[in-house]
Amino acid sequence: MRIVAAKDSSAAEVKKLLRKPAFDEIELPDFVRQANSRIFGADLSAAEIVRRIVGDVRKEGDAALIRYAKMIDNVELSTDNMAVTQEEFSAAEADGDPRVVAALKKAIDNVRRYHEEQKSQSWWTTRSHGAMLGQMLVPLSRVGLYVPGGTAAYPSSVIMNAVPAKVAGVDEVVMCVPPKNGKINPYVLIAAKLIGIDKVYKIGGAQAVAAMAYGTATVPRVDKIAGPGNIFVTLAKKEVFGAVDIDMLAGPSEILIVADATADSDYVAADMLSQAEHDALAASILITTDAGLAEQVAVEVEKRVAVLPRREIAAASLERNGMIIIADDMKQALEFANYAAPEHMEILTKEPMALLPFVKNAGAVFVGEYSPEPLGDYMAGPSHVLPTGGTARFYSVLNVETFMKRISVISATKDYLQEAAADIVTLAEAEGLGAHAEAIKLRGIKTV
Amino acid sequence: MRIVAAKDSSAAEVKKLLRKPAFDEIELPDFVRQANSRIFGADLSAAEIVRRIVGDVRKEGDAALIRYAKMIDNVELSTDNMAVTQEEFSAAEADGDPRVVAALKKAIDNVRRYHEEQKSQSWWTTRSHGAMLGQMLVPLSRVGLYVPGGTAAYPSSVIMNAVPAKVAGVDEVVMCVPPKNGKINPYVLIAAKLIGIDKVYKIGGAQAVAAMAYGTATVPRVDKIAGPGNIFVTLAKKEVFGAVDIDMLAGPSEILIVADATADSDYVAADMLSQAEHDALAASILITTDAGLAEQVAVEVEKRVAVLPRREIAAASLERNGMIIIADDMKQALEFANYAAPEHMEILTKEPMALLPFVKNAGAVFVGEYSPEPLGDYMAGPSHVLPTGGTARFYSVLNVETFMKRISVISATKDYLQEAAADIVTLAEAEGLGAHAEAIKLRGIKTV
Repeated sequence: MRIVAAKDSSAAEVKKLLRKPAFDEIELPDFVRQANSRIFGADLSAAEIVRRIVGDVRKEGDAALIRYAKMIDNVELSTDNMAVTQEEFSAAEADGDPRVVAALKKAIDNVRRYHEEQKSQSWWTTRSHGAMLGQMLVPLSRVGLYVPGGTAAYPSSVIMNAVPAKVAGVDEVVMCVPPKNGKINPYVLIAAKLIGIDKVYKIGGAQAVAAMAYGTATVPRVDKIAGPGNIFVTLAKKEVFGAVDIDMLAGPSEILIVADATADSDYVAADMLSQAEHDALAASILITTDAGLAEQVAVEVEKRVAVLPRREIAAASLERNGMIIIADDMKQALEFANYAAPEHMEILTKEPMALLPFVKNAGAVFVGEYSPEPLGDYMAGPSHVLPTGGTARFYSVLNVETFMKRISVISATKDYLQEAAADIVTLAEAEGLGAHAEAIKLRGIKTV
Repeated sequence: MRIVAAKDSSAAEVKKLLRKPAFDEIELPDFVRQANSRIFGADLSAAEIVRRIVGDVRKEGDAALIRYAKMIDNVELSTDNMAVTQEEFSAAEADGDPRVVAALKKAIDNVRRYHEEQKSQSWWTTRSHGAMLGQMLVPLSRVGLYVPGGTAAYPSSVIMNAVPAKVAGVDEVVMCVPPKNGKINPYVLIAAKLIGIDKVYKIGGAQAVAAMAYGTATVPRVDKIAGPGNIFVTLAKKEVFGAVDIDMLAGPSEILIVADATADSDYVAADMLSQAEHDALAASILITTDAGLAEQVAVEVEKRVAVLPRREIAAASLERNGMIIIADDMKQALEFANYAAPEHMEILTKEPMALLPFVKNAGAVFVGEYSPEPLGDYMAGPSHVLPTGGTARFYSVLNVETFMKRISVISATKDYLQEAAADIVTLAEAEGLGAHAEAIKLRGIKTV
């Protein structure tokens, strides 16, 4: 794995290495482009394909869903088999290993507890003469979740999306999952059932996003769409943004570990690999102040990757996006880490908690050697749906507020309005809005 | 003005009347299309124009800003005159009427106080064996505000965007304003200076949004763009979404008044007109349970519009988007109001506060007869930057959290990890992620 020392290079050069391409700059692999050419009769960009699919679903509804299921996934979809039936839920329950089901229940409990503790409340404040100002926090009415079901199916993603929505108080949560050979992973269905998800649709890709955004005869229109997906799903979320809200535009998963000489090189290597095994586009980066640790981790990673079940994926990811950076000092290490704005940031140093106030950009921070990322992926409580690709500069981890909105409340009295009136009229007139001034004066309010 | 009674029609028909076209379905007026054909050499849609402008600014930076300023606005922009100078700020201060400046200061104080009261804090919770879970609320580093400067310039919009960003703790706030005859409205500059905005650029339209999203040699790249604008600005915000975050996609302004027989028809009429005078696309709707009030308001509006300074605009708006709906009862009135999800909702009833819990979708609620919308536009404290066009279903009023992000924190101990380990490994293995399981086992943690 590549080792870069800031002292042999420059901070600017290191930052260049940490910069991620924008999610819409990633080239499609050749086999995907060939498949798209076959399907659409032209070598369209991913954005062009998505605009076409979303436009068709918006206009034609279910008919477009059925057509694209056939064209893209070779699936015979119909309005009768789009929604998962009670029989299919029951079959999934019969298939589930009780140990896994018990673990899913425990995860649901932990995620629910953390999100309940986090929930903000509507609030009020008072002003002179009995006026009140406030802010109502109101749950969204209907939310749509996208859960990927391609190369791997993740019941944990159902939990990490749906539990925060339920805690927020969303009336109706629906879910779209692409089926594999006509079926959905049983644990995905079991998790959905345990959480009380109202409807699950066997639809994937940009079509699923469009269906939830605009509604079809079968799929209800939602207020917000959340959850991760491939590049087509992500571009579709951008395309429908405005017709509905979306949680974020996310890409491949990442880990960035900040470590000093006290870190255990075995732990660092194992944690980098737990990220790299996700997919070939995943990124695993170590930033350390210790050249010795850098060397040890590089050796350890090589050794461990060879024996992993998903070694081809992990090796490809490390080759492409694996990196070890040696920083001059911990201040610079954190500067680099904040610049990268990683999805997952682990801090493996002598006093990890002391560094927390210096973290400005990250999806989630894992503090100390007994907080490996898989703890957060499955069990601790915070959602594992996190911003990636440097977007932790501005996006938040998926949380209860993701599924709520804030509404201002203004309740004034005549005396309070009287007190504010002259200034309101002065500003309304300065902005040339005469009827604004008139609405005040008319109420028997003096304005000089 | 059109009066529609739900009992003569049906609830479904009334809802159809309340449905707003999507912001990307609005046809450009002919004169705009002709101007665009002249400039771009083809009858492009607004979305196509915006994609072209944003793409050019992303690739070429300042050069594209200069070219489009000349092409679209016939302005000679250069890298030397993009930023407002200290001399221009001083000239604006010299131009300002002290009464208006005093009113701006009062508005800034009120908006700051409300937003300070609203600010959420980072928080912690504990778990067994000394584990801690938390959530950090961190301000964004750099924010860009768009303030329109076309047909009218609104210093109040500077306050309502910038003060929440400052209260959030954003390090650097920059602003883009389209100049008019090479100048920016002096009160816009005075408000910016009073709030401590770092830089103001004389750039407008989709170009300004692209410049702040990707950065140029002159305009810095920001983390989030907020503020209202015309259809080109709005489509540009959608286009750059993902490279930066944005506040919302907003369209023309709206008021919806819920009133019973106790409401004063003069107040209702005046408040509808204060909305209608904004622009011809603005919407003013009354929903009442009282047929008598409906008649009186219709008469009163006709009378008042004739004497307004901006009567052409207000009359066009009422003709196009003015409506009075008579609901069967207050329950139905609120059902219609929530369906419309208006930007501003006024409640003028006998016991207005009692209806507040039934409000599900609105940008801001104005409770009772002494809370006219202009009070919120200028003075009360909550931001007047609000979701429109039915998007209050999912978007929030601009607020302190608009300029902050949430980062999860997980700090575990060996004993806590031991307690969770078996479930983590069970789930990781069920999802086929062996390296995730390995990262736990390796830490000396037993998993059976």
